[in-house]
Amino acid sequence: WMNVHRYSRVSQCKIEKLSTLELTRRVPSEAGYTEYFDQFNEQLQCVGVAACRRTIQPRGLLLPSFSSAPRLVYIAQGRGILGTVFPGCPETFQSFQQTEQQWEQTAGGCQRFRDEHQRIHYFREGDIIALPAGVSHRCYNTGEVAVVAITTFDTSSSANQLDRQHREFLLAGRERLVEQGSQIEVRLQQIKGNNLLSGFELDPLAEALGVDRELVRKIQNPDDRRGEIVLVTSGLQVLQASRKSEQLVREREVRQECQEGRGCQSNILEAFCTMKIRQNIGDPLRADYFNPRAGRITTLNSQKLPILRFVQMSAVRALLRPNAIVSPHWNVNAHSIMYALRGCSRVQVVGHRGQTVFNGELRQGQLLVVPQYYAVTIQAQRESFEWVSIKTNDNAIVNHFVGKTSAFRGMPVEVLMNSYRISREEAMQLKFNRGNELALFASKIEREAIRTSV
Amino acid sequence: WMNVHRYSRVSQCKIEKLSTLELTRRVPSEAGYTEYFDQFNEQLQCVGVAACRRTIQPRGLLLPSFSSAPRLVYIAQGRGILGTVFPGCPETFQSFQQTEQQWEQTAGGCQRFRDEHQRIHYFREGDIIALPAGVSHRCYNTGEVAVVAITTFDTSSSANQLDRQHREFLLAGRERLVEQGSQIEVRLQQIKGNNLLSGFELDPLAEALGVDRELVRKIQNPDDRRGEIVLVTSGLQVLQASRKSEQLVREREVRQECQEGRGCQSNILEAFCTMKIRQNIGDPLRADYFNPRAGRITTLNSQKLPILRFVQMSAVRALLRPNAIVSPHWNVNAHSIMYALRGCSRVQVVGHRGQTVFNGELRQGQLLVVPQYYAVTIQAQRESFEWVSIKTNDNAIVNHFVGKTSAFRGMPVEVLMNSYRISREEAMQLKFNRGNELALFASKIEREAIRTSV
Amino acid sequence: WMNVHRYSRVSQCKIEKLSTLELTRRVPSEAGYTEYFDQFNEQLQCVGVAACRRTIQPRGLLLPSFSSAPRLVYIAQGRGILGTVFPGCPETFQSFQQTEQQWEQTAGGCQRFRDEHQRIHYFREGDIIALPAGVSHRCYNTGEVAVVAITTFDTSSSANQLDRQHREFLLAGRERLVEQGSQIEVRLQQIKGNNLLSGFELDPLAEALGVDRELVRKIQNPDDRRGEIVLVTSGLQVLQASRKSEQLVREREVRQECQEGRGCQSNILEAFCTMKIRQNIGDPLRADYFNPRAGRITTLNSQKLPILRFVQMSAVRALLRPNAIVSPHWNVNAHSIMYALRGCSRVQVVGHRGQTVFNGELRQGQLLVVPQYYAVTIQAQRESFEWVSIKTNDNAIVNHFVGKTSAFRGMPVEVLMNSYRISREEAMQLKFNRGNELALFASKIEREAIRTSV
Repeated sequence: WMNVHRYSRVSQCKIEKLSTLELTRRVPSEAGYTEYFDQFNEQLQCVGVAACRRTIQPRGLLLPSFSSAPRLVYIAQGRGILGTVFPGCPETFQSFQQTEQQWEQTAGGCQRFRDEHQRIHYFREGDIIALPAGVSHRCYNTGEVAVVAITTFDTSSSANQLDRQHREFLLAGRERLVEQGSQIEVRLQQIKGNNLLSGFELDPLAEALGVDRELVRKIQNPDDRRGEIVLVTSGLQVLQASRKSEQLVREREVRQECQEGRGCQSNILEAFCTMKIRQNIGDPLRADYFNPRAGRITTLNSQKLPILRFVQMSAVRALLRPNAIVSPHWNVNAHSIMYALRGCSRVQVVGHRGQTVFNGELRQGQLLVVPQYYAVTIQAQRESFEWVSIKTNDNAIVNHFVGKTSAFRGMPVEVLMNSYRISREEAMQLKFNRGNELALFASKIEREAIRTSV
Repeated sequence: WMNVHRYSRVSQCKIEKLSTLELTRRVPSEAGYTEYFDQFNEQLQCVGVAACRRTIQPRGLLLPSFSSAPRLVYIAQGRGILGTVFPGCPETFQSFQQTEQQWEQTAGGCQRFRDEHQRIHYFREGDIIALPAGVSHRCYNTGEVAVVAITTFDTSSSANQLDRQHREFLLAGRERLVEQGSQIEVRLQQIKGNNLLSGFELDPLAEALGVDRELVRKIQNPDDRRGEIVLVTSGLQVLQASRKSEQLVREREVRQECQEGRGCQSNILEAFCTMKIRQNIGDPLRADYFNPRAGRITTLNSQKLPILRFVQMSAVRALLRPNAIVSPHWNVNAHSIMYALRGCSRVQVVGHRGQTVFNGELRQGQLLVVPQYYAVTIQAQRESFEWVSIKTNDNAIVNHFVGKTSAFRGMPVEVLMNSYRISREEAMQLKFNRGNELALFASKIEREAIRTSV
Repeated sequence: WMNVHRYSRVSQCKIEKLSTLELTRRVPSEAGYTEYFDQFNEQLQCVGVAACRRTIQPRGLLLPSFSSAPRLVYIAQGRGILGTVFPGCPETFQSFQQTEQQWEQTAGGCQRFRDEHQRIHYFREGDIIALPAGVSHRCYNTGEVAVVAITTFDTSSSANQLDRQHREFLLAGRERLVEQGSQIEVRLQQIKGNNLLSGFELDPLAEALGVDRELVRKIQNPDDRRGEIVLVTSGLQVLQASRKSEQLVREREVRQECQEGRGCQSNILEAFCTMKIRQNIGDPLRADYFNPRAGRITTLNSQKLPILRFVQMSAVRALLRPNAIVSPHWNVNAHSIMYALRGCSRVQVVGHRGQTVFNGELRQGQLLVVPQYYAVTIQAQRESFEWVSIKTNDNAIVNHFVGKTSAFRGMPVEVLMNSYRISREEAMQLKFNRGNELALFASKIEREAIRTSV
C-alpha cells in the first residue's frame, strides 16, 4: 500500500559551502522538549530532509500524532515503549484487570476491566525505529533517565503527496509556544497547533464519536498547556505478560478472517501488522565492519529491516577510535545526514569540481549533510568519535577510494599509472598499501606501534 | 512497461480553505458535451488532478483519443461500449457479415465482408473504468438514456513525462469552441484543437498511410464541426456473438506466437491485452461495508482490479442513509476527490493545526478535494447521500478515529486517559462506545428507534 | 540498491516548435575531445536529458569518472575496453607478469608482478553501454580508428538526488578549458574542474591513502594539462587469457563468501557484479523488424538487457532504405532522442492540438527530441538513413497509426467510418491498405517496382 519513492525537489542546488548545523528551536513540554534543526536551512532543503531531537523525561508520554513524512528515529539514550496504530491491524494486546468495570453490555455489575490495543514496541538506546508517513504513534519513557531521540524526516518522499514541508498532525494535545521568538517562528507559525479533533464542531463530533458533549469538550481541550509530551504522574500501566503467545494466536486468526470475509481493507496491510519496525544498531556485537584498532560500523538497510523499503531510508552507526580514519569515499545512491553522538572529528567534504565544500570539526550534537556523490573523509580527534548517519536510500551504498573492494583496487595498475602519471611502483602503493583494510583505518601511531611490537 | 508513480509538483501548498467545485466550462458536441472543473483551481493543482464530466447522447460516439494522464472514469448513468487500442495487442474480435464485400485480394466477386479489431468492453452505470496514459480509446452509447461519465485525471503521474498539464490528443475529429467565453479560455486555448493527423503534410501522409490524397483530406477534415462526440445516425454495429470463446482461442494463440517468435514488442505488453479495465462498484451487492441503518461503501483497489497499479488510483462508491455519518477519519496515503452523485451532505474537513478548512454542504454535481492526512467527517442530510471518491493511490487507506480497527481502539485506555486528561470511564466511552461499528454510523434517531424497539 | 524512477522537472513545458540540435561546445584533450549538445537548450531541459559525443583517439584513455545521471552510450565507431568499478564487487580479473616485482610482503627478492581488478567489458561499433549514476568507469581505445561514442544522460532520473543538472565527478585528471568561449561557458564554469581527490588536504589524504606526500601531490596534479582523455604512449596492457573461466570461478566463490559471512554490503549489489552492461544493436542480424525494401529496426529494452531497468532508458537502432518511411506513430510512455548516424531524412512531428512542431531535415550528427505522445513520421531521402534513438523508459512502446497491430487496425471499420465521415470502402482502405507491414514501409517506387515485376 505504500509504493514509496523519493525525488529531489530542487531544480538547481548549488552546494558550494557546507556547515555543521546546531539545534536552533526548542519547544518545551510538560515532560520534555523538542529541539529542531532549522527546517529552512539550505542544506537540509537541498537534500530534502528535516531533523529534530526529542527529550522525553521519565514517565513522559509523547502524545499520539502522525507526520506527513516518513521518519527514522535513533534512540541516543534511554528506553521506553512505542505504540503505533496501523489502520486495519487487529488489537493483539489484551488485558484483564480486576480493579475496574467492564464497559461491555453484559449481565451483572462489578466485573473485571478489560482492555485491548494494537501491539507495542519496546525500544532502548541504540535502536533505529522506522515510522511510515500518516501512521499515528505515541511514545512513553519507561526508564529512569530521559529518552533522547534523533529523528530524521524524509520530506522528499513520494509517500507525502501534500507538499515538501514537514507537518505533524496531532491526535491529542496541542503544541506549546516556542521559548525564544525568532524569525523562523514567523514562517513556522502555521506548522503545528491544535489537535485534529479540535477543528470539528462540538455537536456533530459528539454524535460521530457516540459520546456526550462534555467529553468532546475535554478532547478538544483548548486549555491544555502541557504541550506534546505530558507527564503520567502515576506511571503508565503496560501490558507484558505472555504477550508473545497471544499475539501469535491473534495474528493467525486475523489472517483467516481476512481470507474468508470482507473484513479487511487490504491484504498488503496485513503485512504491516506484524512487521518489525525497530532494530538495534548500537550494540557492538552487531557491527558489520570491525577493526579493533580503528573502530566499528553497523549498517541497517531494508535487507535487515524490510520496513525500510517503505520509508526509503537506511542508517549507519559508527565508532571511530582516537585518530582513526574513515577511508575517503562517496555515497553512490544517497545523501548522508551525519549526527555526532559523542566526541569530535575532523571532516573534509569535496564537491564535484574538486572543490572543498567542508573542512572542519563535527562535534557532539551537531549535524552535517554530506550530499550524494561528494567525497568525504572523517578522522577522529583525541577521543573516540561516535555518530549515526541517516541515508536517503533503503540500501545506501558507499564507494571507497582505497582498501578492499575500492575504486583503486578495482582498476588495473596500468590505468592508475596513466591516470596520475605515476610509476608502476607508485601505482602499486596507491592500490595495495591499504591491503585488505576496509572502510576504517587505524591511525599512523597505532599502526606503527603494532609494526614495532611485531 | 508502465512503472508508474506520482509525485507532488508543488513545493508549498497552503490549503487553508477548501471549497466545493462546480463544472465551469462546457464544450458542446454533436451528440453530447463535456464539462470541466476548472483545471487551474488551486485545490486541484495542489493535489495534482483534473476532472470533467462527459454526457454522451444515445448513439453518440466519443471519437478516439488518448490523454497525457492516466484516468479513472466513473459511469454515473447509462450503458455502452468502450474500445481501447493497446499497442501490440491482437485483434481478437472478428466478424463475418453477409451484406458487404470483403476487401482482401481474393478471387471472386461478391463476398462476405470481414472485420476484426481489438477487444471491446461493455460498461454500465456504476462501473469504474481505468485508462492508462497514451492509450487510445473511444466510447459509444448503446443505451436509450445519455451516458454520464465522471473522469478524474492524475496529472501528477510519472507516466506523463511531458509536463503537469492535462492534454488530450485526438485521433479524429476536432474540438468545438466553448459555449461561453471566459478567462479560463485564454489559458486553455492551446490545450485542444485538431486531431494529430491533421498536422502532417498531405502527400507524405498519403504515402505513409498508403491511401489517396482525397481520403487524407477527409481524415484531416478541417470542416468537421461535430466536436468530439458524434452521432452515429444508423447506430454502430457491434460484435457480440460467441465473442468469449473466440477471444480465449485467440489469446492462447497470441501467447504462443509471442514465446516462439519476435512478433511482440514486449511480454509485459501482453499482460495488458487481456487485462480487465472495468469493474462495477455501484451494485449494492458488491458493498465492502454494509450497515442497513447507515449505508454502504464499496472500494475498488488494485487488488481487485490489477490495472489500477498502472494508473495509481483507486475508487470508493458510497451511500449514506439519511442523517447517517461517516466516521471521522484521515486518508493515510492518498488525496481523495469526492464527487456527489445524489443528495446533499454536511462535510467538515480539518487541517494540520486543527484548523477547520471546510465546513459546509456538498451537493449533487459538486466536487470536493480532501487532502491527504486531513481529517474529515460526512453526514447525510434528510435524504440519502451518494458519492464516488477517487483516491490518488492504488491502495488507498483510511484511518478512522473511532469504531472497529480505529486509532482510538488501537491505543491503550491509559494512553487516552493521559492524552486527553479524562477519567478511565470517559476513555472507555471514547474507545468502545462505537462498538464494532466500522466507517458508517447510523444517526442518533435511528439508533434510538432501534433501542426502543428492542 | 537502485530503485530508479524518472520524473518531469518542469511544471509547464510548451513545445510549440522543435529544432534539430548541433554539437555546440568542444572540450579538447590530449587524445581526443568531447562535444556537447547545449545542456540549457529548452527542448533537452523539457525532456530532462543531456547529450554529448566523445571522440577517443587510438591508445586514448578516458580517465575514470562517474556521473550524477545514469547514461546510455552508443558506440558509433571503433572498438575498445570499458572498465567499471561497482562498489563491493570482487576483482575477478587477475594477471601474472614476469617483468615486475610483486608488492606483497613475501620472502625472496625478484618475483612475478601480479595485478587484479574488476571485470572489463569489450565493446565495438554498434554497442549500447548502460552506466548507472555514481558508478565510476574508464574507457580505452584498443583499435586503430577513433572511438566515437554518443552519450545520453537522464538528468531526470530519481537515482540522482542532487539536482537536475548533469555533473561529472572526476577520479583523475582535470578538465581542460573549452576551445571557444561562449555564453554557455559562463553558466557551465562550475560544472567540471579538478578531480575529487584534489580537494582534500595533503597530509590527511596521505595518511588516509597510506602513501607518502609526494605521491599525493602527483595525484592531486594541478599541472596536468592532458584533459580527460590521455594518451597511453606505449599502449595499455590488457588482460585477456582464460578470463572467462577465472571469472566464473571467482564469482562462485564470492557468492558463497557472501552467504556465509558479512563481507558484502548487500546481496542486491552482487547482482550488479556479474550483470551485463552492453549489447550490440548495430548488427543487422539482430534486427527486430526487417523489411528488405524498407529497412530494419533493432530495439534494446530491459527484457533483453536487464540493467536498463536501473537506468530507465532503452534504445532503438534503425536503418531506413532510400525513400522508405517509418509509419506515423507516437511514443506511448517515453520521450525519444534521435541522433542521426548516417544520411538525411525528412521528419515531421505533430503536437497535441494537431500543430506541426517540426517539419524539416534531420542530418548526420544532428539530434532531434521527439516528445512523448507527439506524432512523428520519418522518411529517408535519396540515401539510406541510419539513426539511434534513446528512449526515456526501459520498455518504450510506440503506437503506429497504420499497419499491423496499429491504432487503425485495432478499431472497427464502423468507428473509422463515423470518426472521419468516410465510406466503408474508404475505411477499409485506411485500415487494411498497409496489410501486415509493420513500422517500416517501402517507398511508393519500390512497391510499384515489385507490383510490376509480379
